[in-house]
Formats: sequence, C-alpha cells, structure tokens
Amino acid sequence: MRNLIQTADLTVGEIDEILKTAEDIIRQPGAYADRCRGMKLATLFFEPSTRTRLSFEAAMYELGGQVLGFSSATASSTVKGESVPDTIRVVSCYADIIAMRHPQAGAPMIALTKSLVPIINAGDGGHYHPTQTLTDLLTIHREKGRLDHLTVGFCGDLKYGRTVHSLLEALRRYEGNKFVLICPESLNLPAYVMEELEEHEYVCCSSLEEAMPMLDILYMTRVQKERFKSEADYDAVKDLYILDPDRMKLGKKDLCVLHPLPRVNEISVAVDDDPRACYFKQVENGKYVRMALILFLLARRRENDSRRFAKEDLIYHKVCTKSNCITSTTQEVQHIFKKVGKNRCRCIYCEAEQPLFEQ
Amino acid sequence: MRNLIQTADLTVGEIDEILKTAEDIIRQPGAYADRCRGMKLATLFFEPSTRTRLSFEAAMYELGGQVLGFSSATASSTVKGESVPDTIRVVSCYADIIAMRHPQAGAPMIALTKSLVPIINAGDGGHYHPTQTLTDLLTIHREKGRLDHLTVGFCGDLKYGRTVHSLLEALRRYEGNKFVLICPESLNLPAYVMEELEEHEYVCCSSLEEAMPMLDILYMTRVQKERFKSEADYDAVKDLYILDPDRMKLGKKDLCVLHPLPRVNEISVAVDDDPRACYFKQVENGKYVRMALILFLLARRRENDSRRFAKEDLIYHKVCTKSNCITSTTQEVQHIFKKVGKNRCRCIYCEAEQPLFEQ
Amino acid sequence: MRNLIQTADLTVGEIDEILKTAEDIIRQPGAYADRCRGMKLATLFFEPSTRTRLSFEAAMYELGGQVLGFSSATASSTVKGESVPDTIRVVSCYADIIAMRHPQAGAPMIALTKSLVPIINAGDGGHYHPTQTLTDLLTIHREKGRLDHLTVGFCGDLKYGRTVHSLLEALRRYEGNKFVLICPESLNLPAYVMEELEEHEYVCCSSLEEAMPMLDILYMTRVQKERFKSEADYDAVKDLYILDPDRMKLGKKDLCVLHPLPRVNEISVAVDDDPRACYFKQVENGKYVRMALILFLLARRRENDSRRFAKEDLIYHKVCTKSNCITSTTQEVQHIFKKVGKNRCRCIYCEAEQPLFEQ
Repeated sequence: MRNLIQTADLTVGEIDEILKTAEDIIRQPGAYADRCRGMKLATLFFEPSTRTRLSFEAAMYELGGQVLGFSSATASSTVKGESVPDTIRVVSCYADIIAMRHPQAGAPMIALTKSLVPIINAGDGGHYHPTQTLTDLLTIHREKGRLDHLTVGFCGDLKYGRTVHSLLEALRRYEGNKFVLICPESLNLPAYVMEELEEHEYVCCSSLEEAMPMLDILYMTRVQKERFKSEADYDAVKDLYILDPDRMKLGKKDLCVLHPLPRVNEISVAVDDDPRACYFKQVENGKYVRMALILFLLARRRENDSRRFAKEDLIYHKVCTKSNCITSTTQEVQHIFKKVGKNRCRCIYCEAEQPLFEQ
Repeated sequence: MRNLIQTADLTVGEIDEILKTAEDIIRQPGAYADRCRGMKLATLFFEPSTRTRLSFEAAMYELGGQVLGFSSATASSTVKGESVPDTIRVVSCYADIIAMRHPQAGAPMIALTKSLVPIINAGDGGHYHPTQTLTDLLTIHREKGRLDHLTVGFCGDLKYGRTVHSLLEALRRYEGNKFVLICPESLNLPAYVMEELEEHEYVCCSSLEEAMPMLDILYMTRVQKERFKSEADYDAVKDLYILDPDRMKLGKKDLCVLHPLPRVNEISVAVDDDPRACYFKQVENGKYVRMALILFLLARRRENDSRRFAKEDLIYHKVCTKSNCITSTTQEVQHIFKKVGKNRCRCIYCEAEQPLFEQ
Repeated sequence: MRNLIQTADLTVGEIDEILKTAEDIIRQPGAYADRCRGMKLATLFFEPSTRTRLSFEAAMYELGGQVLGFSSATASSTVKGESVPDTIRVVSCYADIIAMRHPQAGAPMIALTKSLVPIINAGDGGHYHPTQTLTDLLTIHREKGRLDHLTVGFCGDLKYGRTVHSLLEALRRYEGNKFVLICPESLNLPAYVMEELEEHEYVCCSSLEEAMPMLDILYMTRVQKERFKSEADYDAVKDLYILDPDRMKLGKKDLCVLHPLPRVNEISVAVDDDPRACYFKQVENGKYVRMALILFLLARRRENDSRRFAKEDLIYHKVCTKSNCITSTTQEVQHIFKKVGKNRCRCIYCEAEQPLFEQ
C-alpha cells in the first residue's frame, strides 16, 4: 500500500504523473465524475484547517465519492485518551482512504503502523504538508509549462515556513532551477535545508525590491511579529517583505506570485486583480491535484510502500525526547531511529536528529 | 450573477416564481431529485445555527447535490486572521453556491466582492435573514392560498426581531394586507420600519387577547428578559405575550400561527397539537423554499446582479463606525455609503445611517 | 413506527433477523449499495463520540444514502434553550431516520414523543447503547457461529459499564450461556443486574488469570482510577485486569476477546496481532449491523412501536428528581412513572426507581 507522508515519498516520475492526471481532470472533469463512486474519504483533522479540509472534500465529491470525518480534536475520541494508531485503525474500517492533519510531527507516520487504507498527510505540525507542495508544483507547471530552469524567489519567513522547505526540496530535483532567498537574517532557512542547497545555484537578498526583477516565481509567506526578539527588530524589517502594487511594477511581465494562504497583510488586496497574482488559482489547483493524488494512491493499494528503511540502519534503543513528536503522547510506542551519516541518527517519526553516540 | 442578501433583492414576481417552484417540488419531489447532481453547496456558518444549516443541507441533498462547509467559526480559517472576502474567494473554488451565516451585519454583502458563485445570506447578525422570510411566505401561501388581503398580527419583540421587519417588508408589497402590532411599548417597531408602514393599514394592541379575534395570521416571537430595564418591567408584561390553549380559543377557526423557532416558552407545548399551529409546518416549508431558491439562483448565474447602486449616489470618503459592521474587522476595505434622501447616507454593508454632512 | 431505544425493544427473533441481514450485507455488499438512495440519516450527537458517529455515517453511505447532523451540542440549537423534543421534531422534517446521542438518560425516549421518523439511541448517558450490543452480538455470532451455550467473561468495571449490562441482558435470552464476572469487589454488577442473573449460571472471579482458561468470550472494559476511594485501593487491583500476551497464553485457542473501545491501557498493544483479538473486527461489524438496523427500522415505519406500557400501570402524579434525567431540563414535560412490582415505580424516561408510596 502506498501513502503520502512527505513529497520525498514520490519520485520525480510519480510527481509528473500526478500533475499530468490533474491537468487531464481540468480538461475533461466529466470523465472522472464517477471514478470513486461507492468509496469514502475520511478527513481526520485533529486541528482545524478549513481550506485544506474543504479542498479534500471537494476533490472526493468531484470524483463521485463520499466524505466523513471530524474537523477538530474536540469532536474526536482523542479526548477520551485514544492513541492515534487506534483511531486510525478504527477509521480505516469505515473509509477507503484517509487524509489526516495533526498538530504533532510524525502523527501520519505512526498512523501507517495500523492503517488498513492509504494515508495522506494533510499537515503534521511544522513538519510536512506534501499536498500543498503538489499544489504549488501544479500551479507552476500550468503557469510556466515546466518545472525546470526557473528562478524562484522565496520571501518572508524561511525559517519556520514548512511549505518553503518542501517546495525547495521538490524543485531541487528538477534541472536548472535557481533560488533567491528574500528574508531577514534571523528568519533564513534552517542549517539542514541550507546544506541541501549547497550544490545548487542560489542568492540571498535582504529586500523584495532588489529581488523582484530576477524572478520567474515569487513564493510569499508571512513574517510574524512573534518570531522576533523585540518589537523594534520586527519594525525594522516588516515593510521590506510586503508585496504591493508598487513592488509588482518591478517584476517581470510573466512573473507568477504564489502564497499558501491564508494571507493576512503580506500581500496587499490591491495586488489581487493583477493577472500575475496566482494565489487564488493555487486554491483551485489544490482541488485538482488532490483528486489526482487520491486516484494515484487508490490505484496502488496493492503495491508496497515506497518508504523503506534498510534494516541495518534502524536503531531501537534510543528515545525521542522532542515534546512535539507524536511518540511523546502515544502509549507503548516503539521508538525507532535511523542512522544518518556516521555520527547522527533521526527519529523516524518526527525526524528530529540526535547524536548516534551519547557524549 | 444573482445573489440573495435581503428579500428586497427579489421582485414580487420573482418571489411568486420561487414559491410556485417550491409548491411544485412538494407535488412531485421525484422530478427534482437529480437537478443538482454533481453540484456542491457550501454552508459557511461563522456562528452556529443548526436549524438553518440542516435545512439548507437537506434541500441540497434532495436536489441530488453535495454539501461541504463548517458549522462554527472555530472550525474555520477566521481564527488565523483571514478576511471574509478571502475565505469566500477560496470556498467559491470548491462549491457552486454558498449559504453563509455571520455574526456581523454586511458580511454577505462584502462576500459578493470576491465570490465566483452565488451567495445566499443565511443571516448576518440582527440584519437580514431572507430565507426565513421566504419560508414564512410559503407557509402563508400554502395555508391561505394567497399573500394579499390578510390581517397579520406580529406578537412579542417587534423592536429587535429581524424576521418581523423582513416579513412586514415583504407583505407590504402585496395588496390589502392589514397589520396588528402586539407588543409592550418599549419593544415596538423601530422608527424606520414604522415610517414605511405609514401608508398601510395597521393597529397597535397591548395584549394578545384583544388582538386574537381579528387575525388571519399570528406571527409569534420571543420577549426576552434581557431587553427590559428592570425585572419589574419584564414581570409586568411577560404573561401578555404567551400563547396558550386559552388564548387559542379566542382565535378564528382558520387562524394560522407562525414562529421562526426555536421557541422557549412563548408558545405553550399544549398548543402544538392544535391544527392551527403551523410552526412545525414552517420547518418543512423552509426546506422546500430553499430547494426552489437554489434552483432559482443557479439558473441565473449568467444574469447581472439585481443589486445596483446609481454611481452618482455612492460616497467613498465616509467611514462606517458601527462596531457590528463587517468593515470594522476587514483589512484594506473600501468604505462605501449611498445617499438616502437629501441629508442622510447609509453604509452599503451594514446599512447603518449617518448624516450626509457632519454638523 | 418502530424505534430502537434499548436492546429489549427487540425480540430474540428480531435480533436474529438483524444479524442475518448484517451477515448477508457482508457476503454481498453490492446488493445493498442503493437500498437507501434518496434517503437521509440525521446523526445528532449532543455529546461527541467519533467512533459511533462515523460508524453510522459509513453505514448510511454504504446503503447509498446521505447524512446530515451535528457532532457536539455547541453546534446545535440547544445553546439557544430549545428542548430535545423540539429539536427532534424539526430534524425529523429533514431526515428519514435519526441516530442520536445525548448525555442525559431518557433523551431518546422523550424524543419519541415528537419525532416523525424512527429514532435510534446511539447512547444516552450511562443508560443504554443498544447498537454497541448488536455489534457485540454480531461479532460473537460471526466468530463462534452461535449465541448460545457460551462461557462469557466480563472483566473490569462491571458496575458502571453500560455495555456490559446490556450485553448480559441480551445473552441471558439465549440458552445455556454461563457468565464469569471478573472485577474488584467494589466494581461488581449493580444489585438489579445481579438479581436478573439469579436464574442463570455464573461465577465471580477476582483475577483475570484464574478466569482465562474457562472462557469462550472475554469482554474487556476499563478500570478507571476515578472509581476508587483512594489511590492505594486502585493500585492494589489495577494490574489484575490488564490483558497482556502472558495472560493470553492462559486462554483457549478459540477464545474471542472483545472491547467496546476506545481502550487506554487495559489491553496491551502487544495483544493486537493475536488472532483471538477481535476488538478491531468489532469495529467493522459495527458498521454492518448498523446498516442492517437502518434497513430493519425503515422497513417497519408503518408498524406500531413495540414499546407498550399497560395504561393501568402508568402514574402521572410523581416527579423524577434524578439530575441526569432528561426531564430535569425539558420544559412543560409530563413526568410519567410505571409500576414495577408492588411497591416500586420507575421513571419511563431515565428508569430511575422510586418507592410507589412515600414513607
């Protein structure tokens, strides 16, 4: 059985196949209107996310299927102390495929251990959100006709923005892409993402104005006050990362502006009517790419999971101590780490690193 | 594209057409069971209202369509600071028609600015609730065979009862109707509604007993303790506006009793079995009239909105200061007023009046 | 119209018929995929219960029907002071059958007084939960091929576990069953259940180990700390009622372990893969038995309710004073008691007993 926990679960060929299906659905939606007749999607949202949930539900309905689930943890059995694997095991008796969102990293990974049906990760804390990345990729592909040889700017909070890390990871796998990092120094990419970027062409930019003329794609995110040490630090930079009509004038004619939404004030409402503003197109693409993904996973229910760990790399004697890891709240859980390089290992659920040998 | 924000958006001819469709649906429901196959209704309830939400959902299912949405604001993106227009723009990528309820006046009006699909106002604060009025009209028409030449009593809280104002406005448009206002003095109709009533025949009555023998229709609402200055004031009048079997004896044989529900104690449970009690019939009619309305709006998606403002009447330099107006919580909003008479203007969202020129 | 408020509403013949239908659905689900086309189930959960709600929803979808409702009281009209009978009366205009869960005993019983459609009790406080019992019976029947001549152990909290009382009541009606009660003395069956057991073969056991070798069926429930007077009392017994792989070794080869779920730690996760662990099979059976029940009730809409009280046994002058009885929060309710034996009577809603004559 195949699942989608992170974008890396998919090969470049598989990503291309999903995007191709999505584009075919857009061309002839009628051909897909009964593809999931008699099937059920469970949307298990242990924390609320209207946009993502409704996108999945609309996707399943347009495939002719049905939807059941919950939209917040208060409406679930979690309050009675049930573990995530137990909840998933139960729901997998009621549905053919599950989309789940959870505030803790690794929750969908632990869900795999008990599920009878494919799992789609619809966001696990600040960790992964692969259907957003597929949405971004479909939008770029539809707007530009390709996913390679693009100059892509990421603007705003690159430190905590999981959608940024994930899209970067995906675009690195396509040839000839260049990256422009537009952010305050304190909100730059985390070290492990920078490492992965080393073999690629990239530049850093402290202001949006400077970056605008170079870009084929501009990926906006929100700079939150709470991320700064002082209000003065925030005030010093906040205006540099807001997209307004004046800054849009500096961009290319065929620039494509993306944003994972919801936006607050980082993109002025006055930009919405600019034809280069593609963030609402993204919303619609999100529905189509989820339709394609549901079909992709349902067609592969009998295949083995692509997620393979070499047995000799697995470590069973270490304990993950991250408070946001799903293992911290799951009873009788087997903690498992995998070796990374020579001296480090990583929790297979939340992917937090630890030294392999205690010092 | 046509929408329904208030009953006044519909001409008398259009109201009659919707009621006629509703009555045809009641006669032959099977003929409508697939009319919305493949379509989706979004029910966006920024505040809970079970009855109204379930009525819309039942309506869409009986037309063969699907439903998605949320039943309270905590389950929506609003908590992340997203504006109503953005939420609506996103959801209009997922649904063919939207029914929305919001605690702030003008929310559905501001939603129009971004929506790609028709909007039905399912209640905006104490402002409008047009599908309740259509429900009331259908019930009167089914029980009486006509909407004109009726003596209609409104009982209880006529000051704050938006369903009263709205039904009054609609029935004024039909010939020969007379109105009986049954309420404590402090809860009489607001001045602007009384003004509109001037050219019509009406009487005021301080007790239900006095009014009963005159009425063809009795529209009950709840008198809430909180509306009174003191408990003594409340105690002095509370019993005068409660409908019980004794007072029913004073009514005509073909009286028709309506109530928008939920009721608390203003109609005794002992009245429920009286054949003249039509408030539970109203509930069922609410479903049928919403089916008719959905069909009406979907059939007119290519027409222009009937809601037109003469450009020369619009004012862009004034700011609405009402705390319950949707503009108070929407970022980067353009405040707009329209002239009303010579010296006044009205916010186009919440319709609060201001003098045209500051004094 | 037939309803299901408690298992005793069904004769043994009717239970057998429902189980037979459920087993036929399992054999040929396709034959049932359109049986409820165009019909709607309302799931009214005045308190949350994900498992039960999703089970009902999956059941209705697999019959080709639709679902509407609410998953917690905060999303319902109850917050506006509407009574349960009024809410039910309204919803019965929107749906063909209702499954309701409510924190107060007797809520579904009072709902009957106003409903236009069949009611299924999906749990009323600590009172009844008949679809869980049907689920348990189907699982036993599928695993053992029969419901009679079985030795059935109940382990854990037998005092407050309503699923235990209800399954016991059902299994007593089949011939030759023996019962093993495995619990701390302070959590043994209530007196009235013990009374009913008198004519049947049963033994009491203070430890699970002692009981294991005898059992055909082991029904596990949770022993909650809160039930004990002191932590010391709890600590003294807690380990005796936990099922782990070591204790499983003492059981028969064809033992069948049941649990109503959710479980916390009373069954070790290490038992899950034992083929004798049937609690996740129960989950799936719950869906099938609910499908069968929906069909059973919809087919009998024109029959009279089996719930009959002899008129001469009813008492109208007594008032139920139980705080958890639905009558305590319903306005204008007629309290009714029925005589039980010579000197006692029972509230027909919550079934709390009172002496017939005050002393």
